Amino acid sequence: MPAKAHFESTYERAVQLEQILSNTVPELIKFVNAAEKERSQHIAGGSPFANGGGHTSLVDPLCGSRESLEKTLSSNGFLALNEEGAGAQGLQRLLDSLLRYSVNTSAPGFMDKLYAAPLPPGIAAELVLGVLNTNLHVFQVSPVLSLVEKHMTKAMAKIFGLNGPRSGGVSVQGGSASNMTSIVVARNTLFPETKVEGNGAVKGQLLLYTSAHGHYSIEKAAQALGFGSSSVIAVPVDECGRMLASELERLVVEAEHQGKVPFYVNATAGSTVLGSFDPFEDIHKIAREHNLWFHVDAAWGGGFAFAAKPELKGQLRGVGLADSVATNPHKMLGVPVTCSFLLAKDLKQFKEANTLKAGYLFHDDETAQSRDISNGASKNSDDETPGDDWNEPWDLADLTLQCGRRGDSLKFFFCWKYYGTSGYSTMVDVAYMNACHMSTLVDRESNLTPVLSKGRAPDCLQVCFYFTPAGQFVHELFTESGRINVQEGGVDQTTEKSQRARLGKLNSQVTSGIAKALIPRGFMIDFAPALEGQEDRGSFFRVVVNISTVRETVERLIQEVVTVGTSLVADLKTNAGPVGLQR
Amino acid sequence: MPAKAHFESTYERAVQLEQILSNTVPELIKFVNAAEKERSQHIAGGSPFANGGGHTSLVDPLCGSRESLEKTLSSNGFLALNEEGAGAQGLQRLLDSLLRYSVNTSAPGFMDKLYAAPLPPGIAAELVLGVLNTNLHVFQVSPVLSLVEKHMTKAMAKIFGLNGPRSGGVSVQGGSASNMTSIVVARNTLFPETKVEGNGAVKGQLLLYTSAHGHYSIEKAAQALGFGSSSVIAVPVDECGRMLASELERLVVEAEHQGKVPFYVNATAGSTVLGSFDPFEDIHKIAREHNLWFHVDAAWGGGFAFAAKPELKGQLRGVGLADSVATNPHKMLGVPVTCSFLLAKDLKQFKEANTLKAGYLFHDDETAQSRDISNGASKNSDDETPGDDWNEPWDLADLTLQCGRRGDSLKFFFCWKYYGTSGYSTMVDVAYMNACHMSTLVDRESNLTPVLSKGRAPDCLQVCFYFTPAGQFVHELFTESGRINVQEGGVDQTTEKSQRARLGKLNSQVTSGIAKALIPRGFMIDFAPALEGQEDRGSFFRVVVNISTVRETVERLIQEVVTVGTSLVADLKTNAGPVGLQR
Repeated sequence: MPAKAHFESTYERAVQLEQILSNTVPELIKFVNAAEKERSQHIAGGSPFANGGGHTSLVDPLCGSRESLEKTLSSNGFLALNEEGAGAQGLQRLLDSLLRYSVNTSAPGFMDKLYAAPLPPGIAAELVLGVLNTNLHVFQVSPVLSLVEKHMTKAMAKIFGLNGPRSGGVSVQGGSASNMTSIVVARNTLFPETKVEGNGAVKGQLLLYTSAHGHYSIEKAAQALGFGSSSVIAVPVDECGRMLASELERLVVEAEHQGKVPFYVNATAGSTVLGSFDPFEDIHKIAREHNLWFHVDAAWGGGFAFAAKPELKGQLRGVGLADSVATNPHKMLGVPVTCSFLLAKDLKQFKEANTLKAGYLFHDDETAQSRDISNGASKNSDDETPGDDWNEPWDLADLTLQCGRRGDSLKFFFCWKYYGTSGYSTMVDVAYMNACHMSTLVDRESNLTPVLSKGRAPDCLQVCFYFTPAGQFVHELFTESGRINVQEGGVDQTTEKSQRARLGKLNSQVTSGIAKALIPRGFMIDFAPALEGQEDRGSFFRVVVNISTVRETVERLIQEVVTVGTSLVADLKTNAGPVGLQR
Repeated sequence: MPAKAHFESTYERAVQLEQILSNTVPELIKFVNAAEKERSQHIAGGSPFANGGGHTSLVDPLCGSRESLEKTLSSNGFLALNEEGAGAQGLQRLLDSLLRYSVNTSAPGFMDKLYAAPLPPGIAAELVLGVLNTNLHVFQVSPVLSLVEKHMTKAMAKIFGLNGPRSGGVSVQGGSASNMTSIVVARNTLFPETKVEGNGAVKGQLLLYTSAHGHYSIEKAAQALGFGSSSVIAVPVDECGRMLASELERLVVEAEHQGKVPFYVNATAGSTVLGSFDPFEDIHKIAREHNLWFHVDAAWGGGFAFAAKPELKGQLRGVGLADSVATNPHKMLGVPVTCSFLLAKDLKQFKEANTLKAGYLFHDDETAQSRDISNGASKNSDDETPGDDWNEPWDLADLTLQCGRRGDSLKFFFCWKYYGTSGYSTMVDVAYMNACHMSTLVDRESNLTPVLSKGRAPDCLQVCFYFTPAGQFVHELFTESGRINVQEGGVDQTTEKSQRARLGKLNSQVTSGIAKALIPRGFMIDFAPALEGQEDRGSFFRVVVNISTVRETVERLIQEVVTVGTSLVADLKTNAGPVGLQR
């Protein structure tokens, strides 16, 4: 009876673990190695399709169809949850399918998302966390991991210029959670009565501000937290996607005149699409004047804190003025997903915003570290001078919305120790150099058009552009040749905007068509919907350069986009219209 | 320049990974093996202190002092974040300190929390997730992992009796987040207008109900979500910690008469302290009558769904009637922290409660799977018959409060496949058998008193008891001997309760003193504050038996508690009073 055997051996975990890992590790090394080899091919100028095989390390083509993948994994027994255990051998077969049908994010062509190839020390830390298997809710069960979290969050807070005596932070389970937590802390700090009475305790609608290019997590959080989506005001941006501080001020003043209660502004350091950095100093000034909590979402662009180049570090000027900063080392800094911090000027606010009594977990009366907490909580929260009244909590769950917390900081800690601050600086600087290189290639390539003006260096590591065969947007091409009459069926073309949107639709379809066609060629790149006012141009590519990207990869990508795009448009021309693209 | 060398080799990740893992894995095996050996010693009846050493695998004594630990880790360079990278050798040194100063949750005596020794297949899955390093927000970048999550949540939903055609679930980052998400879904489903207008859209205070023994995350979530802590009504429990359905009904009716709006009830399957299971069928009936969302927090007790014994499975009777169920395989089922699911009768509600447009992430117009989403969202949400209108979303972030999501389901998937359903059944049944064994030993031991009545089998895997030398509570002992005059300083002893609390304080101090003294002896067990109405008894031990626990360990623990407790009380008697315990 194999099941029984497996069960009995749960008392021999060291043996089991050794057996499983000795099977698993070599497969994982092979998986990473396949990606490395492909990068070497890029560098050597070879084709990944040269040596037979005909596929890249990025992803198996079967994954293109969810139905086919599901069918395959059902028929090969992968998905079956059986009465009998499959043991180590069964696990080995699982692993085979698992790796085969996963995206290899270490592949050089994975430039789709704001995270990419994981750094090896971070991977090892995942394994260590699995073995330690503890929870950073109370110090007693996670002594050294709690210390690492404290230490790393303080170090990060300092790097961002949050230098107060009570500065620090907490690790949170992702950027959305970081942003959400900052809103809770903001509300509970500015309006402590809401802790007991809820949002309704404040007369007048509570309002949050974020730029039109800010991440959707602010709206999602505001909705979850009971403010409703109407409470989130999208502040207009300039032509490069930066929040217009003057518009922020205008909107805040307007709302105040209407009896509403602006209380929170989120500024973005490295927006999701264009990578723009908001003018933090200007925003801070307005926040201070109007008593708004000033949060910076640096989930992505926060990585620039490690740059050596002053112009990159400079993008973060003013972030240190914030009340709270979210940053995700799992994005630019190559730490395995997830690793996110919410940093703060004054951690005491976190404690007071989030603490709740739970005698079965936090033993206020019994231990020294918990005694610190109860003292902290009993003091006057308005006291801005830290002193004896602030005994840092060591039971970290008391600072967050969570109870169970994984020691994610360890992953970043391992990477930082392994590469050193200077290693990280080089990685970030080189990545930006490659982004600039790509941006220059886009400018020069006659079939591509940058989303922002030519000659402009990227704000962050994203390079955004349109495919424009011979300098024309695809719809212009087809309108000229008469193959598509864009005026057809124009019942709802009353406004200029909807007319533009209709024009842009074909470009968007070509963009997504190219993105899809690039996958079997080893590149996964994302695209973003038309910018406000540029609806006729449709969606555009957003390529994310990362700390493992090499020059040769971005050069190859440019060629591939042009090749694939040209062929796709040629197909369109020979057909009666963009049939293959229409839904 | 070592830093440069490390950086350059970031282009050789496979080599790096191999090197780091070949250093790390043997250390981790040794770490787990130390715990295994100690369990073998328990089984063989030997003493962990016999072979020199004088310490157990549980935790290094240094961890008892946060200050000493910090000092040690500062002076040995562990914490230093240097300019130059430390490379693989440096990492090796780190690992040494890390393992040395961590709690070994695989140690047999780690019976402190609701999680314990991690199962090896789950540990291996952590490593695999680290290498895959992806995000389950959209299907394209996580094909097989998205499929695994879908598959596992559907399987779990079925196991709990959530059988609807749209049943399923999502993985969430912990029990608190699961509970919080259920509240958001409940509110947004019952009062869709709150999505735009916030909580204020509903006239009358929105109220949530949970038992007096429910987890504090409900209150924490309600506060975060803008309802305020006054919105959470603690329903009284019976003598075994089960919610009194009659009290729930009374409180709901009363609130409705006051114009308040009860909308959510949380029932608990396996409470944190006593392990009690609420009467789900009765609660469901009331929920249906009063149009409340019926959520079950089965974070801990949900593991009983895998039991073979009918009396354990029976504890979950009625859970299938719930609208949503939270369950954490990282607790009873030995999956490494964190692995948590929020399961649902109707996933469509999740989609409609949480979706937000984010064109740069969810490509509604471009791909088939996203098209499904937008169709689903455009249909009438009141339609209860699933059909063409419900195309399951495959971009899973659209169902949750998060954007970035780790593939935690894989860890549970690996364990389930490895041990099989029958392996898990045996583990859960055996764990319960050992809990019963311990409970019987407590009943028999003249120096211990069970918290609930003698002869009563545990509801779950916790065993709760007081240390009562020769059958007396410690305060009785000292009151008799006249060493403490409990009437002293009785200025605020006007009420019976505060008098009881004063009496209980000494017992609580002894309880925490014993718990602390047990740690160097290889046992970490938790304690909970006095129960309502039993304040004179003070806090009591809560021992959590887990799926790796053996009989011999619980037998040894009983002995140790009695030995340590007896010696502690003897010390008290020889001193002038409980000096060592007073703060």
